[in-house]
Amino acid sequence: MAQGPASGDLIETDALVIGAGPIGLFQVFQLGLLDIRAQVVDALPAPGGQPLELYPDKPIYDLPAIPVCTGRELAQALLRQIRPFGAGMHLGQTVTALETAPDGRFQLATHTGTRFLTRTVFIAAGVGAFEPRRLKVEGLARHEGRQLHYRIDDPDTLAASDLVIVGGDESALHWAAHFAADGPQRARSVTLVHRRDVFDAPPDLQSRVQALREQGAIRFVPGQVGACEADGDGPLAAVQVNLNDGGSLRLPLDHLLVFQGLSPKLGPVAEWGLAMERKQLVVDTEKFATSVPGIFAVGDINTYPGKRKLLVSGFHECTLAAYAAAPIVYPDRPVLLQYTTTSPKLQQRLGVLPPAP
Amino acid sequence: MAQGPASGDLIETDALVIGAGPIGLFQVFQLGLLDIRAQVVDALPAPGGQPLELYPDKPIYDLPAIPVCTGRELAQALLRQIRPFGAGMHLGQTVTALETAPDGRFQLATHTGTRFLTRTVFIAAGVGAFEPRRLKVEGLARHEGRQLHYRIDDPDTLAASDLVIVGGDESALHWAAHFAADGPQRARSVTLVHRRDVFDAPPDLQSRVQALREQGAIRFVPGQVGACEADGDGPLAAVQVNLNDGGSLRLPLDHLLVFQGLSPKLGPVAEWGLAMERKQLVVDTEKFATSVPGIFAVGDINTYPGKRKLLVSGFHECTLAAYAAAPIVYPDRPVLLQYTTTSPKLQQRLGVLPPAP
Repeated sequence: MAQGPASGDLIETDALVIGAGPIGLFQVFQLGLLDIRAQVVDALPAPGGQPLELYPDKPIYDLPAIPVCTGRELAQALLRQIRPFGAGMHLGQTVTALETAPDGRFQLATHTGTRFLTRTVFIAAGVGAFEPRRLKVEGLARHEGRQLHYRIDDPDTLAASDLVIVGGDESALHWAAHFAADGPQRARSVTLVHRRDVFDAPPDLQSRVQALREQGAIRFVPGQVGACEADGDGPLAAVQVNLNDGGSLRLPLDHLLVFQGLSPKLGPVAEWGLAMERKQLVVDTEKFATSVPGIFAVGDINTYPGKRKLLVSGFHECTLAAYAAAPIVYPDRPVLLQYTTTSPKLQQRLGVLPPAP
Repeated sequence: MAQGPASGDLIETDALVIGAGPIGLFQVFQLGLLDIRAQVVDALPAPGGQPLELYPDKPIYDLPAIPVCTGRELAQALLRQIRPFGAGMHLGQTVTALETAPDGRFQLATHTGTRFLTRTVFIAAGVGAFEPRRLKVEGLARHEGRQLHYRIDDPDTLAASDLVIVGGDESALHWAAHFAADGPQRARSVTLVHRRDVFDAPPDLQSRVQALREQGAIRFVPGQVGACEADGDGPLAAVQVNLNDGGSLRLPLDHLLVFQGLSPKLGPVAEWGLAMERKQLVVDTEKFATSVPGIFAVGDINTYPGKRKLLVSGFHECTLAAYAAAPIVYPDRPVLLQYTTTSPKLQQRLGVLPPAP
């Protein structure tokens, strides 16, 4: 077995599924029925993908035999369905590297350093990894991770400093309220910058923020960040906000927190040498295999004649891809079609029958 | 419009779906979303197909986002899902004839005389029409529909006569109890013939039959029908039962009722000149079209490279087939991919938004 120096982090598996959206999760299920162990990586902090991220509480009407369900309910049902298979979930991570190991397996690594050695790869990445939409201001990018934050991993480090928070959504308001409220987490100052005095957040959160504004704990500035200020290569000192009335305002700060929603990025998948067509991975309709044997692409990220970007199609695609992977994982075992209703073996794998003695 | 002489029975539609199993029902749904009206024909008396017929109360574990459901629940969910589209259901009928009309549409007829004129045909017939398994005894077939019955459509006509009932399942016991119990429906005699004194029926029904046997209202004969007796071309007079102990018994009768389960028959579909391979209809994977333009085949009845006879695949197939039918039904309308979560037009079709003014 090939192992790198940091062998503690290397996870060996039969299948690596990139994307924990509905299709990635059902991929785990179909692999599990065929006794193929899987690990899952997703850029978002929770499994569920687009439906959970974009419309958690909106109805979906076109899933077979489910007259209506929300994005959240869909994710919950799929997570319940794959529970018997105990797939490892590696969330908040994006896959950065893919290489072929000398024995024909694939070596993959995420941006946080998790490494995998796997026989098969299933790209179920939808429209790509959802990443925070960046604030496009000259000279700002180099401060990311130090004074510029698109995600708050460790809020304690921001207490007692001067914060400028940009955005009008639930995240922006949540953190504004968090750092403005009394307590040990309180910042020295909180300034909220948004182009309009209208917010997209639950009513009770909006009321809390309104109350903190009236107490003077949050200062609201209507406008957009137009420039940033630093002394040469030194730290970020301030941002310049272009006000809606035409004027501008300089806001000194220790940290800039930006919440402008998420946007999908195909990311490194585009650089793995797989055949592509208009930013989609080209697959056949028998195995949903990419141009590299052992790497499959399912769901919105693939393309083939007749392709429609629908969940019902992704579910079929990952099913046939699982069957196509079985002879790679088990070269000596015939692949049989069995039904969960009648097969004791499948029911044992699902945990509804006790394991065979 | 081409109309035959019995024009009262001719139903014009956009799509005729053959088969009211899960895939036929979801076909109606996907057609409905695309504003394509459908009519459905099925040989069974109720919609639901194989899962409802073969395992109504057994669990299915592999439908996407449905951790477990029974065949009955699957049928109920799909019927609820297609309700907004008001498709006509023609049950207990098998399609016998298919012809092309002069204007390019298809003319179809069922064995009970219902006729359709349609732009598109969707064959979702699974393993074929479920037909009662026939009792194979020389000379018996010609009595079917007069004295030999595989299904009881009008029980009143059988009262007050000598009945021989063959079979050991719920139907056999149900009708034995029905005709043996006191009341106007009571037969002159009821003899139940089954190869073993063991039955496949709910316990309470078995107890009722046992009580009627103890009262002498049902006579039980353990054995199998080996021959039948009629005077030349005349009516059926008796059957000969080969008893388990080696002897035989002559049972005079007015009517013979046979319940030996159902078996699928592909039937006339095989004679329509569509390309076939090992009794399956050959389709492409872009449109799931047969070799005749306008006729699609979806679900267990079709074949293509990679085909697996799974519900999850049939749901995908009927979705792409619906999209492929749209330009036939609406030649001047572009076919757009819309999502039920975000499209007001689809939500109007589903009846969850009021119709556009």
